Amino acid sequence: MEPQIPKGFRDFLPERMRLRKRLIAKMTDIFERFGFEPLDTPCLEYAETLLGKYGEEGDRLIYKFQDRGERMVALRYDLTIPLSRVVAMHPEIIKPFKRYHIAPVWRADKPQKGRFREFYQCDIDIIGTTSSYADGELLVITYTVLKELGFKNFIIRINNRKILNAFAVNNGIGEERLPDFLRSLDKLDKTGLEGVFAELTEKGLMNDQLRTSLTAMTGDSAAADHNESLALLDSIVMGHEAGRQGVAELRILHETLQASNVDPACYRFDFTLARGLDYYTGPIFETIVTEPKIGSITGGGRYDNLIGLFSKETFPATGTSFGLERLITIMEELGSAESKQSLTQVLITQFDPQLMPHNLRIAGMLRDAGINTEVYFSQDKLKKQLTYASHKAIPFVAILGPDEHRDGKITVKNMTTGNQETILQYDMESWFRTQLLQP
Amino acid sequence: MEPQIPKGFRDFLPERMRLRKRLIAKMTDIFERFGFEPLDTPCLEYAETLLGKYGEEGDRLIYKFQDRGERMVALRYDLTIPLSRVVAMHPEIIKPFKRYHIAPVWRADKPQKGRFREFYQCDIDIIGTTSSYADGELLVITYTVLKELGFKNFIIRINNRKILNAFAVNNGIGEERLPDFLRSLDKLDKTGLEGVFAELTEKGLMNDQLRTSLTAMTGDSAAADHNESLALLDSIVMGHEAGRQGVAELRILHETLQASNVDPACYRFDFTLARGLDYYTGPIFETIVTEPKIGSITGGGRYDNLIGLFSKETFPATGTSFGLERLITIMEELGSAESKQSLTQVLITQFDPQLMPHNLRIAGMLRDAGINTEVYFSQDKLKKQLTYASHKAIPFVAILGPDEHRDGKITVKNMTTGNQETILQYDMESWFRTQLLQP
Repeated sequence: MEPQIPKGFRDFLPERMRLRKRLIAKMTDIFERFGFEPLDTPCLEYAETLLGKYGEEGDRLIYKFQDRGERMVALRYDLTIPLSRVVAMHPEIIKPFKRYHIAPVWRADKPQKGRFREFYQCDIDIIGTTSSYADGELLVITYTVLKELGFKNFIIRINNRKILNAFAVNNGIGEERLPDFLRSLDKLDKTGLEGVFAELTEKGLMNDQLRTSLTAMTGDSAAADHNESLALLDSIVMGHEAGRQGVAELRILHETLQASNVDPACYRFDFTLARGLDYYTGPIFETIVTEPKIGSITGGGRYDNLIGLFSKETFPATGTSFGLERLITIMEELGSAESKQSLTQVLITQFDPQLMPHNLRIAGMLRDAGINTEVYFSQDKLKKQLTYASHKAIPFVAILGPDEHRDGKITVKNMTTGNQETILQYDMESWFRTQLLQP
Repeated sequence: MEPQIPKGFRDFLPERMRLRKRLIAKMTDIFERFGFEPLDTPCLEYAETLLGKYGEEGDRLIYKFQDRGERMVALRYDLTIPLSRVVAMHPEIIKPFKRYHIAPVWRADKPQKGRFREFYQCDIDIIGTTSSYADGELLVITYTVLKELGFKNFIIRINNRKILNAFAVNNGIGEERLPDFLRSLDKLDKTGLEGVFAELTEKGLMNDQLRTSLTAMTGDSAAADHNESLALLDSIVMGHEAGRQGVAELRILHETLQASNVDPACYRFDFTLARGLDYYTGPIFETIVTEPKIGSITGGGRYDNLIGLFSKETFPATGTSFGLERLITIMEELGSAESKQSLTQVLITQFDPQLMPHNLRIAGMLRDAGINTEVYFSQDKLKKQLTYASHKAIPFVAILGPDEHRDGKITVKNMTTGNQETILQYDMESWFRTQLLQP
């Protein structure tokens, strides 16, 4: 039988897993530092829980099937809808509820380069508060994660659905055509302003005032400093109460970012950010990396009405999602990837089969000292054993022969420098410690 | 819409996640100390990869479905078959390949108390060596994990398929009836010896010699010391070469356990251990916990022919699996469960909305010092904020009022003792550090 992995799916061998695990550990650490706690939900949900939440395209991409003649079930498509279901089912959860969730999701997409059917999302969400400080905190965390991962060239783009709504209304687009308008605006990066105009014309949404306003808003002058950007947004939402509220919310985001020492060059109030999903109601944000040019690596926003779909009560909510796969791609391209070195630090070779119990005892001593230690199991030639250590990039080996054993000694070898010494077993732990600490 | 979770599936809220995460971190740490490295495989496999590997019952329980008109796919049923597929597909992997994998698996079982359709397995396997020291190492790790988790009453039962085969042949049961015989013997714990005899009679496998031998092997005298047990096994396999090899392998396991300082009371050579799966070829083992009486919590064995199903080459292999859900149940029953305390260590209250930028700045200082800190977002009464901290079991709060702000001070409060002081902001970090270290 020919072994095959399903198309669009991946195995992660140890060398690639190391970087993934390091990244997840780093993010978990930061999330917990900000008071977020872990939640896990099943990989399967009832299909009806997911359907109709992600638009037509989304519904098509959901993996769904019959659960043994019972009900239609589906593989989780993102982490936000399962969170919403959990919050609706558990009114006892204390609010604000700050949770993180790092887990795979599935999309029955056409497999292609860089597009997978199974991939990890890392989400943080805050449920139960309308405070814009909550939205601001998500941005501070985004910044902290990217900085601590060593990213240099990134910009967090920030907008507010309330501002976009006000702009649309002020420029003759009715409430009911708003999603249409946003979907066209969302393509600005891809098609340019002329492309957006063409699409709006096709949809019958174009008018002269809109042309003038959009041209003004997307010109170079829009990229001024933060206070100027906010003043410009004030001018757009003129006379529109919810719109003014939207700008006030962004001022609190700005205040939060400033008070948290976030580099002002790393964020931008950007009127052209629209974000695809229909359920956003307030601040929206995404992060783009400018080098390497790879598109957005985080995205999120406030969704005050979504949980109400599952519950009589509504819960204000805001959240953001990190794309683990893209973060890893960037880290690999930036050369900040994990070293090739094995997690194993010492290999105890098998020099004399009679001495195996002593090899095992010595390995136990090193492990008790917190040193990752492997014992060579087979009676192979020493040369083959050293080749194994070198292929696996295990940095140190230890060799116990009859002479060493008699004298309570052991031969230790640094595989990088080739340096080899025979030392007392008693001194072994400190020898390895010293060597492991060297750069 | 009524929010529902599919039957047989579970959400893990933060309080329960803490223990799960702690357990997984502990196991990961131990696995890496022994030189195991992480591997991850997709949750979905082609159905044909899984079918026919777990017996009839297993095939029935596999979640399978059509992948968008392409091929039948299935949710992973265990972690051993995906590992076998990976090894067959990647001949470049250096052997011995020692990997761990901690991940969910799915079984379309009838949901009932304590039985779930989605649950975690924690597997360690060593591929590419026939050495019994590899099997022995799995047992040392089993012991280390259970000891470090604080388990006291457990016994690792050890047997060898080669010994069972020899016993069967020496007692008039043909090679082709062996699986039948093992399946009956496997029920000894449930049905007692008479139950096994009845089933063997029904299957037409019973004879006088078998009755005498089985009675002798399962009597009290079988529970003597390890050397006596091994001598007894020697007598069973008399004249059967592979059987003698089987006992010799168990002697190496014994040597490995002794050299690794494993408490002799925690393992037993137990002729009656049969293990369900057909693919085992050598040593087999499982761990039972005697208090609370919960059945087996680990199980595994050598499977030298399984990977050959996927590959022209065959690879000797041995592995064991820990049942995460049962480990957690026991830890909860033993009262060794995680404390209810939040991961958040300090809540910065919002005393004066004007001072929010300073609250944020102070939170940043504490986080930089590695202290998990939450900022209260809303303008609620202080009493409500303290109630929030107390309900979430956050151990400390900090309060910044206008007076404190003017004087560069802050009021800090220990929520457990009620102790409250106003200190310099400059001294805040060391104050929390000192308090957090107190028992």
